[in-house]
Amino acid sequence: MSASTSTIAALSTPPGRGALAVIRLSGDNAHEIFAAVVGEKEKFIKESARQIGIYTIVDDNGTEIIDEITAIKYNAPRSFTGENMVEIFCHGGAIIPRKILDRLFMSGAEAAGRGEFSRRALLNGKMDLLKAESIAGLIDCQTEKHLESAQLAYQGKQLKSLEKLKRKIINILSDIESRIEFAEDDDVAESESKLIIENKRELELIISELEEDLRRSDMVKSLDEGIIIALAGPPNAGKSSLFNEILGYDRSIVHDVPGTTRDAVSEKIVFEGITVKLFDCAGIRITADAVEQRGIERTLSAIKDAHIVFWVTSADTPLTDDERNGIIDAAAVDDKSSDTGRKKTLIIINKIDIVKSEEKKQFCADRSLEYIEISLREKINADALFAAIKSSTAQISEDMPPPEIIINDRHRRIIAAVASNLRDCVFHYGREELSAHYLKKTLDLLAEFLGHTAGDEVLNEIFEKFCIGK
Amino acid sequence: MSASTSTIAALSTPPGRGALAVIRLSGDNAHEIFAAVVGEKEKFIKESARQIGIYTIVDDNGTEIIDEITAIKYNAPRSFTGENMVEIFCHGGAIIPRKILDRLFMSGAEAAGRGEFSRRALLNGKMDLLKAESIAGLIDCQTEKHLESAQLAYQGKQLKSLEKLKRKIINILSDIESRIEFAEDDDVAESESKLIIENKRELELIISELEEDLRRSDMVKSLDEGIIIALAGPPNAGKSSLFNEILGYDRSIVHDVPGTTRDAVSEKIVFEGITVKLFDCAGIRITADAVEQRGIERTLSAIKDAHIVFWVTSADTPLTDDERNGIIDAAAVDDKSSDTGRKKTLIIINKIDIVKSEEKKQFCADRSLEYIEISLREKINADALFAAIKSSTAQISEDMPPPEIIINDRHRRIIAAVASNLRDCVFHYGREELSAHYLKKTLDLLAEFLGHTAGDEVLNEIFEKFCIGK
Repeated sequence: MSASTSTIAALSTPPGRGALAVIRLSGDNAHEIFAAVVGEKEKFIKESARQIGIYTIVDDNGTEIIDEITAIKYNAPRSFTGENMVEIFCHGGAIIPRKILDRLFMSGAEAAGRGEFSRRALLNGKMDLLKAESIAGLIDCQTEKHLESAQLAYQGKQLKSLEKLKRKIINILSDIESRIEFAEDDDVAESESKLIIENKRELELIISELEEDLRRSDMVKSLDEGIIIALAGPPNAGKSSLFNEILGYDRSIVHDVPGTTRDAVSEKIVFEGITVKLFDCAGIRITADAVEQRGIERTLSAIKDAHIVFWVTSADTPLTDDERNGIIDAAAVDDKSSDTGRKKTLIIINKIDIVKSEEKKQFCADRSLEYIEISLREKINADALFAAIKSSTAQISEDMPPPEIIINDRHRRIIAAVASNLRDCVFHYGREELSAHYLKKTLDLLAEFLGHTAGDEVLNEIFEKFCIGK
Repeated sequence: MSASTSTIAALSTPPGRGALAVIRLSGDNAHEIFAAVVGEKEKFIKESARQIGIYTIVDDNGTEIIDEITAIKYNAPRSFTGENMVEIFCHGGAIIPRKILDRLFMSGAEAAGRGEFSRRALLNGKMDLLKAESIAGLIDCQTEKHLESAQLAYQGKQLKSLEKLKRKIINILSDIESRIEFAEDDDVAESESKLIIENKRELELIISELEEDLRRSDMVKSLDEGIIIALAGPPNAGKSSLFNEILGYDRSIVHDVPGTTRDAVSEKIVFEGITVKLFDCAGIRITADAVEQRGIERTLSAIKDAHIVFWVTSADTPLTDDERNGIIDAAAVDDKSSDTGRKKTLIIINKIDIVKSEEKKQFCADRSLEYIEISLREKINADALFAAIKSSTAQISEDMPPPEIIINDRHRRIIAAVASNLRDCVFHYGREELSAHYLKKTLDLLAEFLGHTAGDEVLNEIFEKFCIGK
């Protein structure tokens, strides 16, 4: 692999209003092109690498100043890309970074493609594919959990895990292949049969670890999209008021006719740093009204998909059998959540300014259900409510360790395929040839993961998801 | 003035997805606070100033890595603010810059207020108020013209012009004051009376220069908001079709009933890099219909406010007296535009696929009015149309030099007051005491402009308009 010889330039900070912007310039002629656009050519040529200096970017006549900037020179191979580079720190905003880029383009630089700086770093051996992907993960992550996982990859722990996995597979494969070679030898020694059992156990362990990582990465993905809180409970118990209380503004109509909120309404908010998707469900009530019926279906599905259910009930109404069943269903840890143990249900007994409901408290206590008593109207215990929201969301986000090897969709796809191959291998474990086939396919997949077999097309696909200037 | 001793931190690049973000840290403890959040404390302490180095930001236990960054140390007073500073270049995106800022805040830094870095630079004598404002102008400018003007200020040319102006006023004032002092001396020497006339002429010249700058700054302001193109002309001539042709999509209803477009509709587009506000005017027609009448009023006002008028007429209708007058009015350089000479009118003779109108061509030629013949329906001469739009907008934007001393609303307000005082001074020129009064007020205003008399309140107001991280 040899470095591309063209020189690329791009804005590496987000567009928009800001005090500063950073422009990166990389390639064989990076220094010459930069020298061509500044008023202080000699100073730049003499400047030592990695030392910041002040320069003026001038127009093509060398007369008008476009901007006064600072810049750092990097000599190949001691740079991010491994090429000659200049990092330009200019004034931000809509006009100046564009004008400086125009000057660089006029002087021979080309517009960098998505992820092209990282791609050059990869081609020049400055980083491997996993590190390049981890940087994209660092930039794109929306949650701390995602960050932790990208950080593990950035620090090379993902690579270590993958190499360990690869070595294990190679060892098991070589055991199997030696058995194939000496197949005429019908006698299986005791030590040999012990090894077969051990290897199978090892494979099962690997599969369960990969499945755990897949689950964690699913969780990270859903955290990225937001923790789903469903507000459920009987009509007129205060779900919409609670929804509005949380949002802090009047989002859905609140009044006293039961069944007012016909449909699930949702809102995405950031609550104490965690993205939360709030669903205000229609009251669960059996009714002939088709519209309300549809709302109920949506409610049930929102409860099923939710990470947290707030069951809102009113202290001034008796506990019906319907509601008993509703709460029990909502609190039941379903199949999906049992994997991660993540579903939480909190019973919110509202309207305690009117009356206290010993019956509902007792019901919760009997079933060890978490509950709080509040009055939304009189703002009684509102603090406790917010504390409960905070602790439930924080708990969900903290409970689960980050995935160790999956930080993006490409990894998820490959690891799912690896796990599937290893399951096939275990399933056919007695049949050496077949087992070896699945292990070889696994090794191919791992090579793909590590980028060892990545052709231009695969790299194009990977870097296409990067941002410009990376 | 002494520097504030607290240490401030802020993101200096726009928030959002980007390869890099820049965080600035400034204040007495900037180096200590940075050292507290990185894994390489010793390395940072030993590192020489202005040299970029690689560090890792670690969590408060020093165990988990938040990001691998590069950073530059600056020693007071050789920094942007004149204080100890660190510039941190971290990975961009939603999470990492926030986490690093949180670490800095936890370690003793405070969140920087709007423009607080610039304000400290001002207090430490690293820049004057005008330079600080010019940086805000560089960042906030929306057009090249605005950039040129901010650049002039940034390079100190604005300051020079103001100081020259101030010296002239001081000279004239001292002449007047010496006359007041020797007022008993009734005899006015010939040289003295010559000086009086010269000074008055000088003042008039200054006033006209300031008025020119005010006009230029108005122009920059309106360029920032967009060049206004009004599409006027008789009903059913193709204004709405032209409007849609320019926008490239169906914005207003186009059909064959005259008077369809009842009201002026407008759209803001960026045409070849220049912001353009396009007004599709109702057909000018005298009618009893109140709604249409209101549309006509709006049309007349849109023509009056427009920088460019496209008068759309149809080749297949005769030239009525109403239209003759309409074109003559539109093309007439009105009082406002005569100041800047900026109004352009282009006659667009549409529907030449049906018939050619020698009468309308002749009318334009007789009055040296620019015209083009097109057919929007048959796309005849569409290129010429776009070339005409391009050249008219580019011409307007290039014709006018940028203002020399006014780059923001504060300057505009002060210079308007200066011009008004000087006009009063000229008006009362015979009366020495009054003239001196107006000149003193002028000097006060110039001191305010230069920031020499700016108290905390004024500075608050100025820096409040800056962005965070500046």
